[in-house]
Amino acid sequence: MALVECVPNFSEGRRPEVVEAIVAAIRAEGVYLLDTQMDHDHNRSVVTFAGEPQPVVEAAFRAIETAARLIDLDAHVGQHPRMGAADVVPFVPLRDISLEACVELAHALGERVAAELDLPVYYYEAAALRPERRNLADVRRGGYEALKKELGSNPARVPDAGPSRVGQAGAVLIGARGPLIAFNAYLNTDNVEIARSIAASIRESGGGLPRLKALGLLVGGRAQVSMNVIDFRETGLFAIMEALRREAARHAVEITHTELVGLIPQAALLNTALEYLQLPLEVRSHTLENRLGEVTGDYREVPFR
Amino acid sequence: MALVECVPNFSEGRRPEVVEAIVAAIRAEGVYLLDTQMDHDHNRSVVTFAGEPQPVVEAAFRAIETAARLIDLDAHVGQHPRMGAADVVPFVPLRDISLEACVELAHALGERVAAELDLPVYYYEAAALRPERRNLADVRRGGYEALKKELGSNPARVPDAGPSRVGQAGAVLIGARGPLIAFNAYLNTDNVEIARSIAASIRESGGGLPRLKALGLLVGGRAQVSMNVIDFRETGLFAIMEALRREAARHAVEITHTELVGLIPQAALLNTALEYLQLPLEVRSHTLENRLGEVTGDYREVPFR
Repeated sequence: MALVECVPNFSEGRRPEVVEAIVAAIRAEGVYLLDTQMDHDHNRSVVTFAGEPQPVVEAAFRAIETAARLIDLDAHVGQHPRMGAADVVPFVPLRDISLEACVELAHALGERVAAELDLPVYYYEAAALRPERRNLADVRRGGYEALKKELGSNPARVPDAGPSRVGQAGAVLIGARGPLIAFNAYLNTDNVEIARSIAASIRESGGGLPRLKALGLLVGGRAQVSMNVIDFRETGLFAIMEALRREAARHAVEITHTELVGLIPQAALLNTALEYLQLPLEVRSHTLENRLGEVTGDYREVPFR
Repeated sequence: MALVECVPNFSEGRRPEVVEAIVAAIRAEGVYLLDTQMDHDHNRSVVTFAGEPQPVVEAAFRAIETAARLIDLDAHVGQHPRMGAADVVPFVPLRDISLEACVELAHALGERVAAELDLPVYYYEAAALRPERRNLADVRRGGYEALKKELGSNPARVPDAGPSRVGQAGAVLIGARGPLIAFNAYLNTDNVEIARSIAASIRESGGGLPRLKALGLLVGGRAQVSMNVIDFRETGLFAIMEALRREAARHAVEITHTELVGLIPQAALLNTALEYLQLPLEVRSHTLENRLGEVTGDYREVPFR
């Protein structure tokens, strides 16, 4: 059975009734709701669900329709960059489905969002139609406000599908990608400049770690390094944590705790443990569960290695 | 289905044909052979298998019989403490079975080994009949050589089952316990005294970490801290690795790499990652696999928390 994951992010993290309406729109036969996280400070929510391709795409469409109806970006305030009510809608291949197939799902959903909801759609990451739109941060630069100013006038803003005008629901960024990990580290300071400086030095765009994105934010009065780990198989959490601690020490601050947004593939945690413990990565397949699963068939891990 | 694990250790790590004969004796309908590790330096092998209680106990008996027939402790040399050809035979509850039920399996096996193989049997850990025999290290102190000298004369040596005399197969230590982790750290020195000093300061008996046993050995010309983590839920690999690195630094040496003997419960690696990453342990149940398993039923982890 093909299993695809969808992890839409919505620009609402303060009104539970709105998030509940979106989740209710996602619920359906054949759709496995895995996780919902509301973030009051970022005023943003992340829903994780999975299932076979068709019901998952249908659920994603209903969620976008509901968010566009209930969220007004002209009234939205929050730390996190965003361009739409349903801001980003990525598809992730879990089992028995390819990234290419997920790209097709993204494009099919985008066509339908453009045709039936009359919203501008941009494709990003593996689903991008233009190289300059692969990187989500580039597509979203300036957020909803910049899009409102430029859409219709700036040819670089012409959407991949849908109208070249924007309403209070903004635009929808639809993508296909591997298992991204959203990982935030809190510092024992309220000086956001330190978080920004640490973020700038560890992220790929600053010559830091490959496939790592990082921003410095002020969240609940605490400086936070907010990160997207695009491919933990290339840059894992161990390398990131070591870099964070090294940079924090340079600024004479400490990491008080960290948090994940959404779900994390087990392999990302197992790899972190093995690197920290100086064990060979082959031990990955040498856990009791993996061996039991191999011989009894009673355990399958999503094969993110 | 009740699932019990058995992890017998045999005093042979150099003659593959002997270990193969033991493994062949274990193989049977309803017995899942999970892992076999031969250690040339320790001249010792560890076999891990699991299944429903009855076939597992039967397989353990056949393995003890085979080892007793093929291994001569008068001819055995090796670093690791040992008292028998089939040296230790612990049962571990995995699923739908209690530790108490594993104690009964240990006693039933011991009675049979005493009656049919005429070998002295000692029960240890949860299967111990005397408090002073709970700790394996105490039961095994002085190894086969001391046992040969004292059995029959020293009343403290009277076995829990079987004869008070010892042949070249030695004695069998049969136990029931939770998920022990055998974890070894290699140092960048051939000075075994440093390994002994580090071991002495981190183990419980030296006032170190609870439920941690540690020895300093010279293995393949390298100083090695050889450890048994009796219950990783009490003292996990993160606390152990931090203690090892701190003590190594005090002796101006470094850990070059580590190794596991046998299989490790996934939870022990996941907990290590979460502690290292300063994430809350609740994230344990927040992996993609756990959530998928909960909603699809397509994944069960052995619940070592």
